[in-house]
Amino acid sequence: MEPFAFTPIGIIRTPFIDKFGTPRQGRMVPAAQARVEFVDSAPAELWLRGLEGFSHCWLIGVFHEHMHEPAPPLVHPPRMGGGAVGVFATRSPHRPNPVALTLAEIVGVEGRTLHVAGIDLLDGTPILDIKPFLPEADRADEARSGWVDAHPWPGLPVRITDSATARLDRIYELSPPPVPRDQFERLMVETLAIDPRAVADRAKIIEDGQPRRFWLRLYDVDVGFWYQGAAIIIEELRFALRSPLYERFESGNSLQDD
Amino acid sequence: MEPFAFTPIGIIRTPFIDKFGTPRQGRMVPAAQARVEFVDSAPAELWLRGLEGFSHCWLIGVFHEHMHEPAPPLVHPPRMGGGAVGVFATRSPHRPNPVALTLAEIVGVEGRTLHVAGIDLLDGTPILDIKPFLPEADRADEARSGWVDAHPWPGLPVRITDSATARLDRIYELSPPPVPRDQFERLMVETLAIDPRAVADRAKIIEDGQPRRFWLRLYDVDVGFWYQGAAIIIEELRFALRSPLYERFESGNSLQDD
Repeated sequence: MEPFAFTPIGIIRTPFIDKFGTPRQGRMVPAAQARVEFVDSAPAELWLRGLEGFSHCWLIGVFHEHMHEPAPPLVHPPRMGGGAVGVFATRSPHRPNPVALTLAEIVGVEGRTLHVAGIDLLDGTPILDIKPFLPEADRADEARSGWVDAHPWPGLPVRITDSATARLDRIYELSPPPVPRDQFERLMVETLAIDPRAVADRAKIIEDGQPRRFWLRLYDVDVGFWYQGAAIIIEELRFALRSPLYERFESGNSLQDD
Repeated sequence: MEPFAFTPIGIIRTPFIDKFGTPRQGRMVPAAQARVEFVDSAPAELWLRGLEGFSHCWLIGVFHEHMHEPAPPLVHPPRMGGGAVGVFATRSPHRPNPVALTLAEIVGVEGRTLHVAGIDLLDGTPILDIKPFLPEADRADEARSGWVDAHPWPGLPVRITDSATARLDRIYELSPPPVPRDQFERLMVETLAIDPRAVADRAKIIEDGQPRRFWLRLYDVDVGFWYQGAAIIIEELRFALRSPLYERFESGNSLQDD
């Protein structure tokens, strides 16, 4: 069959700069706020008129980082911890056509910008379409969900150490992330509680006899954490290695309390 | 931005041969059964493995008949009966990227074929992706739905006359549609109850002093009906004008009782 070509109407800006830690589904991280930025030529204010009356919308996007990767017919879903199912029984981004579908909470429409929350998309994801959520058409109240029913997401307890809290104070003094501080904390906790590790890393939480440090990037901040049994401890925060803020603040120790 | 190209994984075969009467959303016509037929090269049996455990799935397709039509930024939704809203506050098929999203009930997986119900897609619609419905990610229980809340679909009473019933008997004797007879009756009734008329035709139900006859095509059958106040009367059934069955049966009067 002949291919169909779709030109993005814009991109979405989200806290998730790396694949690692990007939630595997929408609504898993309610604090993940984002905004759709339309291409300049788009009549965005007209397109969006009336959408502010809805509480939720669908975002249809492109898993652009998986666009030219192979899409094996069987997938090992992370929370299954081993078993394999067909790709159409999963929401894996490795798909024959890597189309993303996310149910987003509408936070507000502001001129040409749509603000949403509960997002599971990588920063910069191209958006093809936006549709209102219609309960009459989109809600299956009596749904049965196969292997997923038997494999709920974990809800790991997440603790933030005092030193990480002090670091966060300092980060908010120097160059605050674009969300209020309490929301940033919720974002860290909600993102980690569903366990971002790949299946292969589950057993590798000790390295050279020490707890292995993992890094989650949110906006311009790297969040360092380790596993203590089934719990997650956030111990370190710094401006992200690949962010201009790293050069500016991290090298000269200005993140330390004076 | 650069376009993204997607090659359909198959097409969906549905009862809806014409745009007229094709439901404007999924789940409006539960009796609308359909099947996804995959392209020959597709590893369909692997792709679908495990999907049979889910009760519902998302079908992402292409409104192929609207692919190269203009998509005005404002839309007049049929059930609003006049007002206009932005295209992203509607499910109109006339969209900047005409991507279709339908929540389908899974009837069963049979080898390489996925059987679904509650479909609002035109016969032959190209399918790009299939995803399982996940209540945790896809269900907004507390949803508010803007202008839609104030404009529910009508539920018109639909009556089938005795002569239409006799015609249906004869059609099922000669060349039955691919669904059981009682399901075909439900399909007619459910499709008409939500009123397929365009807004512009609402006032035009009398023609030359007579009730105007409308035709709805379902599979190879043309269903003739008219409006009696707020009710619909199905009065005529025949093999569809553009179907090979028309030549075979309708010209020689074989649809009449012997």
